[in-house]
Amino acid sequence: MTYCVGLKLDRGLVFAADTRTNAGLDNVSTFKKLKVWEEPGERVVTLLSAGNLAVTQAVISLLSEQITDAAEGQSTIMNAKTMFQVARIIGGAVRQIHETDGEALTAAADSFFVTFILGGQIKGETPRLFQIYSAGNFIEVCDDTPYLQIGEHKYGKPILDRVTRADMRLGEAAKLVLLSFDSTLRSNLSVGMPVDMLLYNTDSFTSDRQFRIEQDDAYFRQVSDGWSNALRDAFASMPEMDV
Amino acid sequence: MTYCVGLKLDRGLVFAADTRTNAGLDNVSTFKKLKVWEEPGERVVTLLSAGNLAVTQAVISLLSEQITDAAEGQSTIMNAKTMFQVARIIGGAVRQIHETDGEALTAAADSFFVTFILGGQIKGETPRLFQIYSAGNFIEVCDDTPYLQIGEHKYGKPILDRVTRADMRLGEAAKLVLLSFDSTLRSNLSVGMPVDMLLYNTDSFTSDRQFRIEQDDAYFRQVSDGWSNALRDAFASMPEMDV
Repeated sequence: MTYCVGLKLDRGLVFAADTRTNAGLDNVSTFKKLKVWEEPGERVVTLLSAGNLAVTQAVISLLSEQITDAAEGQSTIMNAKTMFQVARIIGGAVRQIHETDGEALTAAADSFFVTFILGGQIKGETPRLFQIYSAGNFIEVCDDTPYLQIGEHKYGKPILDRVTRADMRLGEAAKLVLLSFDSTLRSNLSVGMPVDMLLYNTDSFTSDRQFRIEQDDAYFRQVSDGWSNALRDAFASMPEMDV
Repeated sequence: MTYCVGLKLDRGLVFAADTRTNAGLDNVSTFKKLKVWEEPGERVVTLLSAGNLAVTQAVISLLSEQITDAAEGQSTIMNAKTMFQVARIIGGAVRQIHETDGEALTAAADSFFVTFILGGQIKGETPRLFQIYSAGNFIEVCDDTPYLQIGEHKYGKPILDRVTRADMRLGEAAKLVLLSFDSTLRSNLSVGMPVDMLLYNTDSFTSDRQFRIEQDDAYFRQVSDGWSNALRDAFASMPEMDV
């Protein structure tokens, strides 16, 4: 399993991805699921991955090779004019991998299942955030629901639903995302630390606010423990049912 | 979908069940999923149901008919000596319905899927709490994890994990359960109000603290709104990530 979140806020984009992958409960590893392509000053493209690791890696390798080997006039995620075109290129790569691997996966009773959160900004546009499905189709977030989740989304959704506001500062949104991860990590062993994060400020066209939160990270421990205590206090402060 | 919770605490048992059933998104109804059999002063047996409604109703009807038509010496949930025996009788009823209906359900591409939370007390025993599966097998809660959930359990689990304590008062546990429902109701349309509840005090051998919480219930509104505000305040009071 996996848990990844993307938020589109007035001030920019926030991305977070856990790093646990597993082939059965007895085979657990750490893999980075947050990938960035960038041309500083011009574009930042971020991709978070969930699903079959062989498929998500193949999609990313294909996209990277397209950039290196692009023929004259060929569209890649590094020369596409809009994030919508980037989403189409990634959807196309998913379909290409499905063509080569889909049948064999089905024959092996495995499933061709992937989802991506794609976000970023290309000069001339505002930041945009998309979710891309196994079929290569995709949706874009709107103001009503400014976040996307992939993987194990349920445990961490209530806090996002209650607290997310488009006018949050990015550091405030990072706190929110870590609390959403904390709820998920407590309940699902197939989601695991460390967590990779990227805070992207609108019009910065750089991914330099990228970092990894380890299990023993002081800030993570502070918000995790603080949240548990605050919830218990809030619970105790409310009246009991009188029945 | 469905959401039901059962807690086994030092002071007794707490049960809660939503009432929404649906056959597709366009066919939604209200059905009670909390069933009580009792002999005041001697036993209280409570069953919460999730899964295929035709199957859960058939199981309950079969159990009720066994009580009415019991042959001399036949075990029923009203004469069984222990809650373990009651769980076996219910598991047996599930298997009997599987024998009559399982094949036809599979043939119709439907599934024979049910789960139950069974709790109660029979004179001579302390209160006990079980979860019964589609195969008729079951588990009993232990002190490490004093609650059970069936149906859509994920959204409402973080609050149970953080707050549940065996020494809670039943009114306090009722507050906790309603908050767990509140998180679930906000995120999953297939779980719906009203919520049926039963608070059972150890050695009371009566189900008289049974009631229904409607959408506009004043106490439910108070804890639901109060909880949202408390979460937002707790969130605001914690330091932002400094990155």
